[in-house]
Amino acid sequence: MTGTELDDIAAADKTRLVTRGVCRLLTQMDQACVTELRLKTGRRVDVISLNSKGKFTIVEVKVSVADFRGDRKWQEYLPFCDAFYFAVPVDFPQEILPEEAGLITADAYGAAILNPAAEGDMNGSRRKALTIRFARHAASRLGAVTDEVLGAAGKEFLTDI
Amino acid sequence: MTGTELDDIAAADKTRLVTRGVCRLLTQMDQACVTELRLKTGRRVDVISLNSKGKFTIVEVKVSVADFRGDRKWQEYLPFCDAFYFAVPVDFPQEILPEEAGLITADAYGAAILNPAAEGDMNGSRRKALTIRFARHAASRLGAVTDEVLGAAGKEFLTDI
Repeated sequence: MTGTELDDIAAADKTRLVTRGVCRLLTQMDQACVTELRLKTGRRVDVISLNSKGKFTIVEVKVSVADFRGDRKWQEYLPFCDAFYFAVPVDFPQEILPEEAGLITADAYGAAILNPAAEGDMNGSRRKALTIRFARHAASRLGAVTDEVLGAAGKEFLTDI
Repeated sequence: MTGTELDDIAAADKTRLVTRGVCRLLTQMDQACVTELRLKTGRRVDVISLNSKGKFTIVEVKVSVADFRGDRKWQEYLPFCDAFYFAVPVDFPQEILPEEAGLITADAYGAAILNPAAEGDMNGSRRKALTIRFARHAASRLGAVTDEVLGAAGKEFLTDI
């Protein structure tokens, strides 16, 4: 295994743990979250949460400068949420992140909002479609972890809207 | 343990297995399902599924005549779905079930529709609220099974709408 491959594994692990911390924070804030939801555009969000009023928050996890530099299209997420955040580990150089986005720092056990996101303005029909997509993603993932037959059949990937 | 208590355990087990069969059928039909969703009215549905167009199916599982006779308020579910079914084991006396409802027979491994449900007519704001409720229920249950901390905190029970 090369050094780069080892770095990739370490980054994937770090992403998983930071993601867990972010989900704990969002859950404490009474937001229900899922990970790796694929949007209509084909892009996959790291974390997306839904509050009781139907509002969406998207959180992109960046565990290193390289990770952030490799993805400059974060603005593409804005039409699909009411609030957008980057979530980074505490040792991440925050000054390179765009000020227009919200900022969360996280570790494996929790997270904190350092800079609240500005409230966006979602289109009504996009919100409706995203709510259905989120609901079906969450339910089918749940089915895949609670019934091994559904999991084995890859049924967590239902038809998209 | 009394004979009645043993019967209750047997019935709970049978309900769980029939529910699994129903969820497998619905998933094959490209519907994403969750179990035990509490409606705004306080009633808990056995199974509720959401298709890619945002339509809801509710399935009530009845494993014995006593189980069916103990719950005569099935009409209360109708405003919360586009299709309503009873699901019963193959040896259930189907003639006692109301003809207006759809009928599914199921075992632990799968299920079949014997009588399709008539399509209902859901109110738009109720559909919107139910979609959010379904989404949050599914996501928080998923969080509870994938992160033991959220599970232990009982965070699968988020605030209702």
